[in-house]
Amino acid sequence: MFAERFEKKETIDLRKRYIGPSCKIFFSHDPIKIVRAKGQYMYDEKGQRYLDCINNVAHVGHCHPDVVKAGAQQMELLNTNSRFLHDNLVLYAQRLQATLPDKLGVCYFVNSGSEANDLALRLARQYTGHTDIITLENAYHGHVSSLIDISPYKFHQLSDAEQNQFVHVASSPDVYRGKYRADHPDPATAYADEVKDIISKAHKKGGKIAAFIAESLQSCGGQVIPPVGYFQQVAQHVRKAGGIFIADEVQVGFGRVGSHFWAFQLQGEDFVPDIVTMGKPIGNGHPMSCVVTTKEVAEAFMTSGMEYFNTFGGNPVSCAIGLAVLDVIEKEDLQGNALRVGQYLTSLLEKQKEKHLLIGDIRGRGLFVGVELVRDRLKITPATAEAQEVIYRLKEQHILLSADGPHRNVLKFKPPMCFTTEDAELVVEKIDVILTDGKYLLSFIKGNKDLLSGSGLV
Amino acid sequence: MFAERFEKKETIDLRKRYIGPSCKIFFSHDPIKIVRAKGQYMYDEKGQRYLDCINNVAHVGHCHPDVVKAGAQQMELLNTNSRFLHDNLVLYAQRLQATLPDKLGVCYFVNSGSEANDLALRLARQYTGHTDIITLENAYHGHVSSLIDISPYKFHQLSDAEQNQFVHVASSPDVYRGKYRADHPDPATAYADEVKDIISKAHKKGGKIAAFIAESLQSCGGQVIPPVGYFQQVAQHVRKAGGIFIADEVQVGFGRVGSHFWAFQLQGEDFVPDIVTMGKPIGNGHPMSCVVTTKEVAEAFMTSGMEYFNTFGGNPVSCAIGLAVLDVIEKEDLQGNALRVGQYLTSLLEKQKEKHLLIGDIRGRGLFVGVELVRDRLKITPATAEAQEVIYRLKEQHILLSADGPHRNVLKFKPPMCFTTEDAELVVEKIDVILTDGKYLLSFIKGNKDLLSGSGLV
Ligand SMILES: Cc1ncc(COP(=O)(O)O)c(C=O)c1O
Ligand SMILES: Cc1ncc(COP(=O)(O)O)c(C=O)c1O
Repeated sequence: MFAERFEKKETIDLRKRYIGPSCKIFFSHDPIKIVRAKGQYMYDEKGQRYLDCINNVAHVGHCHPDVVKAGAQQMELLNTNSRFLHDNLVLYAQRLQATLPDKLGVCYFVNSGSEANDLALRLARQYTGHTDIITLENAYHGHVSSLIDISPYKFHQLSDAEQNQFVHVASSPDVYRGKYRADHPDPATAYADEVKDIISKAHKKGGKIAAFIAESLQSCGGQVIPPVGYFQQVAQHVRKAGGIFIADEVQVGFGRVGSHFWAFQLQGEDFVPDIVTMGKPIGNGHPMSCVVTTKEVAEAFMTSGMEYFNTFGGNPVSCAIGLAVLDVIEKEDLQGNALRVGQYLTSLLEKQKEKHLLIGDIRGRGLFVGVELVRDRLKITPATAEAQEVIYRLKEQHILLSADGPHRNVLKFKPPMCFTTEDAELVVEKIDVILTDGKYLLSFIKGNKDLLSGSGLV
Repeated sequence: MFAERFEKKETIDLRKRYIGPSCKIFFSHDPIKIVRAKGQYMYDEKGQRYLDCINNVAHVGHCHPDVVKAGAQQMELLNTNSRFLHDNLVLYAQRLQATLPDKLGVCYFVNSGSEANDLALRLARQYTGHTDIITLENAYHGHVSSLIDISPYKFHQLSDAEQNQFVHVASSPDVYRGKYRADHPDPATAYADEVKDIISKAHKKGGKIAAFIAESLQSCGGQVIPPVGYFQQVAQHVRKAGGIFIADEVQVGFGRVGSHFWAFQLQGEDFVPDIVTMGKPIGNGHPMSCVVTTKEVAEAFMTSGMEYFNTFGGNPVSCAIGLAVLDVIEKEDLQGNALRVGQYLTSLLEKQKEKHLLIGDIRGRGLFVGVELVRDRLKITPATAEAQEVIYRLKEQHILLSADGPHRNVLKFKPPMCFTTEDAELVVEKIDVILTDGKYLLSFIKGNKDLLSGSGLV
């Protein structure tokens, strides 16, 4: 293996020539060439180290030796499809199931978050006999056709966006910037009631609800944490309409939220989705994913008469890797680490919020944290350009962070789960320096005239 | 790693319990447990060796050491998404492109044949601004929603199959069992004219053709080899209607047909599709696949404004594995081997056809061969049960073969490309013994009364 085969400039030229231009690169005007990675660190072609605060796929740490070993050993032994019996498949399904409520007992192994969510929709439609899907504002669920349709994050990018008639978009349950905010007496009920209204309206037009789909915590949508009780109420409304509840855990599953293994569990023990979809962290970068559902849904899908075959899904190598990831999470108590380091990171950021008016909101669970930048804390004007600037200046400091959400003004932390308190200190310190810079002060001052009036500053 | 963790019976029980019942297993009443594989051989938990005549995914041979090594080394070094520059990605794209006509110059890396075909449809629809798709009878293009819609092989399995209004099904260009047969003066034109008619009819209803999609050789559809010139004429009609041509090479690409690297090239140098999709053999079992298209199509897709992001697609490990597969094909001249061994296998099978009336047709290119079993050579009544019996009896002899096609009466050969002349001799010899068995003779005699009358046998 070569560490670097081409000069960086040539890599860029070849990429322009051979790779679809819709495939975007980070920091496109000065992209990074990464040649190796370990734990929470990535290294460029010159050996420069970057602290990775964004790569939730490298869940147990980049190139974790146990995962690499499990994959390599199984590749050497056997890699074939699931039309033959194999112990890795059943053992892995059993292990994965053990992390979930009993009711969620049947697995389908696929290769990507998109394949998982597409299958979830097929399961829901077959089980309910209905077609309509309720999705959240700003949601992203994948890149295949059926998912673009239910991903406002995506279809709003289209110049000629045309919303599918079977798709209904509910407000994002965002208590900072959404329709019902922290000052609302019961935002969970208010947001859930909106779903109820959507169902009524759909029924009036002859529509029938197959499923409500949502990330357990919205990630691309801006690191949104729905108020507790929201999912229970939504599930009640949706099930009453004959539909089911799909929890997309592609970004947020596998212990990232710290207190629980699955982010939907943050809503309380009384909430169990009908389908859970998994992806990204499941194989620490290996292309694999999974859909878990109830016996009832699985049996209804079978009675359609249509076999389900996925060439690569559930192959012995993917399952060996999946097992190794579960082992490492346990052995290294990465869920506990996410809880501890996440809390520490959040507390450090809270202190920054006291110091910098640009920080409007800090929200997080475990190592899933959002920092929303605003130009004006009262009007919560999104500080989009400032967020971009922070990201670029952090990159100069060799720290990888990104900004997302509908206004691209939410700094999102979702680092490998071996992230340490020192890493947290480092990134927050750098953010502090950047935000203290005069340029920013200027924009806060401009944006916060009301707040600052009388302070002598303006 | 464990070779066998559970007793076979327990593996079966766990599979029943935890794996979606729609995921079918080979030989379901007595499934095989495979624990390792090498080259063209698979081994069960007792060490029994099976000759693998069906696994076109293990293209360069099960567990090829060069491929395993490339994967393991890259896993150890770096596995991340394509938002960073990486040489493996661009080098692999360059190498892959070099196997294709110049016009096909832009790659998108994804994880499965289904993701590739779904993206192909999105590209086609965006480029043309049209929606309708023409697909072939018995076609299978993948398991995601958008592809079930264009896969008659699948949607005909559904009890309540409802054909999508945007999908038009053209006859399979099968010169043995199809509408226009070997005795037709010009089946290529006759089948292509049907596509032309479909376009006219669609236009009359206000439809607009985005694409014609077909496997370069139909596999699940029954190992069908379209007459030369068919694709050129279809492409002409489709392009005239503003649509494009998608060649699905998921099963048949990467040198399998022997004389060419891509099966669409069998149609002649004057034929170039607008999009080629790849899968299965591309990574020798590693979940990866690719869509290659023209600059024009890629640019139109970009101008939609929608970014394309696939979490795992084009990661450095997948690309390292893809490169190793290309290297092995070249180094071991597997394309040449496919040509030579394929021709030999076909010639041995031709001799069997002279001997056994049950064999209605032998058709193949390289190591992609179909043997169609019929009860009556004149009426070409499908010998479905007989085909199943052959498969089961071969399994008892430790040879893995399968039967497919709309009547499940076509024995399909698509072995790893390291298949040898001895392997060909072995499987044909076993088939000979099975077909010589009295039970079969009986069914031929019953079915071929006309042919045999006067022979003294009936
Ligand atoms: C919430 C969510 N679901 C699904 C997906 C799709 O996953 P993939 O890119 O593996 O298809 C993503 C990818 O970003 C995601 O964020
Ligand atoms: C011709 C063809 N296209 C596409 C696919 C889908 O590939 P995958 O199972 O990798 O999604 C298949 C799978 O059997 C196929 O045979």
